Amino acid sequence: MMAVEQVLIAGVWRKAAAKSTFKTVNPATGASLEAEFPVSDWQDCEDALNAAVAVAKELRAVSAEKLAAFLDLYASKLEDHTTVLVETANVETGLPITPRLKDVELLRTTTQLRQGATAAREGSWTHAVIDTKANIRSHFAPIGPVVVFGPNNFPFAFNGISGGDLTAAIATGNPVIAKAHPLHPATSKLLAECAVSALADTGLPPETIQMLYHIDNEDGLRLVSDPRIGASSFTGSRTAGLRLKAAADSAGKPIYLEMSSLNPVVLLPGAVVERGEKLAVELADSCLAASGQFCTSPNLILAIIGEGTEQLSKDLVGILEERTPGLLFAAGSVDALDESVHALMDEGAKALTGAERVIGDGYRYKNTLLRTTAEQFLANPERLQREAFGNSTMLVTADDVAQLQRVLEALEGNLTGSIYSSTTGEDDAIYAKIACGLRFKVGRLLNDKMPTGVALSPAMNHGGPYPSTGHPGFTSVGIPAALRRFGVLQCYDNVRADRLPAVLQDNASNPSMWRQVDGSWVRG
Amino acid sequence: MMAVEQVLIAGVWRKAAAKSTFKTVNPATGASLEAEFPVSDWQDCEDALNAAVAVAKELRAVSAEKLAAFLDLYASKLEDHTTVLVETANVETGLPITPRLKDVELLRTTTQLRQGATAAREGSWTHAVIDTKANIRSHFAPIGPVVVFGPNNFPFAFNGISGGDLTAAIATGNPVIAKAHPLHPATSKLLAECAVSALADTGLPPETIQMLYHIDNEDGLRLVSDPRIGASSFTGSRTAGLRLKAAADSAGKPIYLEMSSLNPVVLLPGAVVERGEKLAVELADSCLAASGQFCTSPNLILAIIGEGTEQLSKDLVGILEERTPGLLFAAGSVDALDESVHALMDEGAKALTGAERVIGDGYRYKNTLLRTTAEQFLANPERLQREAFGNSTMLVTADDVAQLQRVLEALEGNLTGSIYSSTTGEDDAIYAKIACGLRFKVGRLLNDKMPTGVALSPAMNHGGPYPSTGHPGFTSVGIPAALRRFGVLQCYDNVRADRLPAVLQDNASNPSMWRQVDGSWVRG
Repeated sequence: MMAVEQVLIAGVWRKAAAKSTFKTVNPATGASLEAEFPVSDWQDCEDALNAAVAVAKELRAVSAEKLAAFLDLYASKLEDHTTVLVETANVETGLPITPRLKDVELLRTTTQLRQGATAAREGSWTHAVIDTKANIRSHFAPIGPVVVFGPNNFPFAFNGISGGDLTAAIATGNPVIAKAHPLHPATSKLLAECAVSALADTGLPPETIQMLYHIDNEDGLRLVSDPRIGASSFTGSRTAGLRLKAAADSAGKPIYLEMSSLNPVVLLPGAVVERGEKLAVELADSCLAASGQFCTSPNLILAIIGEGTEQLSKDLVGILEERTPGLLFAAGSVDALDESVHALMDEGAKALTGAERVIGDGYRYKNTLLRTTAEQFLANPERLQREAFGNSTMLVTADDVAQLQRVLEALEGNLTGSIYSSTTGEDDAIYAKIACGLRFKVGRLLNDKMPTGVALSPAMNHGGPYPSTGHPGFTSVGIPAALRRFGVLQCYDNVRADRLPAVLQDNASNPSMWRQVDGSWVRG
Repeated sequence: MMAVEQVLIAGVWRKAAAKSTFKTVNPATGASLEAEFPVSDWQDCEDALNAAVAVAKELRAVSAEKLAAFLDLYASKLEDHTTVLVETANVETGLPITPRLKDVELLRTTTQLRQGATAAREGSWTHAVIDTKANIRSHFAPIGPVVVFGPNNFPFAFNGISGGDLTAAIATGNPVIAKAHPLHPATSKLLAECAVSALADTGLPPETIQMLYHIDNEDGLRLVSDPRIGASSFTGSRTAGLRLKAAADSAGKPIYLEMSSLNPVVLLPGAVVERGEKLAVELADSCLAASGQFCTSPNLILAIIGEGTEQLSKDLVGILEERTPGLLFAAGSVDALDESVHALMDEGAKALTGAERVIGDGYRYKNTLLRTTAEQFLANPERLQREAFGNSTMLVTADDVAQLQRVLEALEGNLTGSIYSSTTGEDDAIYAKIACGLRFKVGRLLNDKMPTGVALSPAMNHGGPYPSTGHPGFTSVGIPAALRRFGVLQCYDNVRADRLPAVLQDNASNPSMWRQVDGSWVRG
């Protein structure tokens, strides 16, 4: 029998304080994997918290250059371990090695880490504001230990131990306690080993990054509300997110959540007539990417009734039936998807195709298209906005523009919203009518583009109104904006020059940093 | 009998839906004032919310110039009504007409409004980020109707109808529902009349600003959690703030709170020896300003035991006894202060002077100095951090620097923290030891300066760690930073050029606005 895997606490791999363990399953075969991982007791959290508090103080004296060097080196080490990382992640998640894991997600992860390094070196994220006349200066400083809860759907790029939240927390000078997702612990272990090695090589304190594989829900609630942390972040289901939010809120601890999103795609009549066939392919590609297991997968397609829409609906059914259903992450993913699809059908949505499990090897569900009317949707908007996480989407047809507008008004907050319109201008009047309604329901508004690509751009917003996230002013993707979540505003009033942080002194210590001095942004 | 005053809803002064009314009392005489104000029922809130939703949409099409023109004109109208405003506020609050109301607070209010106008015109608060290569663009847009709960202690500058939160909300293009404080309704009415007149003269929708005088606590909780609002802000007691926070949080609505703060002032030994006598005067001035009824009044003085500290303590007692106790706002203020002072004494603090009511006309309490040891403080840090709002402060003496450090570590989050040190460098080693501990407990760190002046500087932070506020990343004073609270991050991904907001188009429509284009801040 293999020993239970060790957790990374206080700078060392050690035996977990754990009453139970878990194993994972290969979603392609249903076979249980051999390694056994601990479900940490509170004692592990307690030890991690104490180590994090101590190292948070140490990190305040560490240069941004050193943090950046770590992030760069961590990226390189991930690249050095590409083969084992992608193979392990493939076995645990069923995501294909190419292009997804190797060419897309690992690249995304190393790019994020390097962008974080650049942002740390550059320093502008601290938003230094200097009022020389009043001798008042402010900037954003590290918020304190950050607890990151990673989701099931990105074993690298959103993993608590290697993803965007870790990158942002480290780039802002905060230690991280990563709660890995229990569906890919072996991948998380490999990532953590790279992190540990990069910390050592860079000379950063080994306690800077800690990792637990799994904890009880109750301990998660304690963790996000513990006075020792600065903030926490969570990507995952709405149910879990709202419980964590309630706990963190009641303790006055910032928590940044990405919880759920239907990502409505509005197809205006001119676009449907002009390029309906092409749109059906684009929709299918987007809905089936990663078997629909993206936060930005389109769960809702809105169109106005008509011949073009009927044809598009048929085309989409055809493509969905033609394509082999992809793997879902776990048996529970299939169950949850089936439950959601049937809950939507119970509210009146009709299944045009799919809506049942695939019999055979691996966790699969038939590619699914549901359909309902705007009238039905408006009669029960809350229940018909249930997220069906996976390879399922729902077409809602409106009788006219006015009804479409009412559907948009009834939407909850979403990460994204897309509008496809004719290239020749014939949808422009409708666009003008509906865009504003959608605009205030989504964090990112797209034109003629599916939402599933979330570019690593400084202008990206991977956030949105509640309940897609917990606060509409923050983004989890896009550097340096994502760093702001882990900063705390600190002001210096009449503080003697030699006691100011270097970045707030009259002469900038960092020539690359933008600072706002007496109302102007200046550099160097 | 006078008619009950009308509320400002949906652009008109109208009879409130109210089951009860209230009157105010002149704190200088205890005499009841004649005017009768309504405690609005939920129906008034409901009507205000509906009007706010409608006007929020209208405001999206209004130019920043028009918003700015309103703010400027509102400031001018306040100046035109100086005499009646300061006289009315004086009668309701007991605050002196000069210098406080006329020369300080009204000027502060008009300055804020004009700074808000400048920020709206300038436009940089929207933090436009443009990635031309990816054609992704983002900026902060209006969050939606803002509900502002004003405090008792600033009838102009923090009033929901005229203060910094209203300024920030309007400058960002959001309508405001002001909940005036029931201790100064007549002042609020006059301010609202100026606002209404300025809205009309500028041609802004009259529904842009609405005002209720008073509502039940339960309706306040409903208001901050109503799906129709964008956000709310509150300045006041911790008890009320935490109740509102819980309600808003559970509905996923941002709420910005300023709740309580002890504003520790640390006197290092060299400074005490060097200028103890002067420090006693500075402390007394700061503690007694507005009878200690500032959010930033020093409630906690920390010093190391020694001859200098003993002398300073005596000097301070002398000054406090010599000065006439100022007016407090209401009978309830005296009760609350007395209760807090005695609660601190129950925990072992000794009263060196004061600690009792003043018999005679007006609501007054004796200028009070309590004293306790760091040891006692550390034995019960939570109870000994009870805020005593008013003309009372507490000296805590530590045996040595290490004990002082432990006291700082035991502090809750505060708005400010001050350190006084010798001008000749002999406290520098102690400063280096303790400053970091204090830094992360406060939003604004001061040197050799009392916290009670909150300059209207872009670098100001009038915020701080919980529970002084609800989130350590925001400030309620300092423009444009304070505006950010009422913005929502909106991204445009591949949106056609002519559909972009003007400020995100390639060619800036506003030459004064700073935008981050492909990594550089550029203007014009």
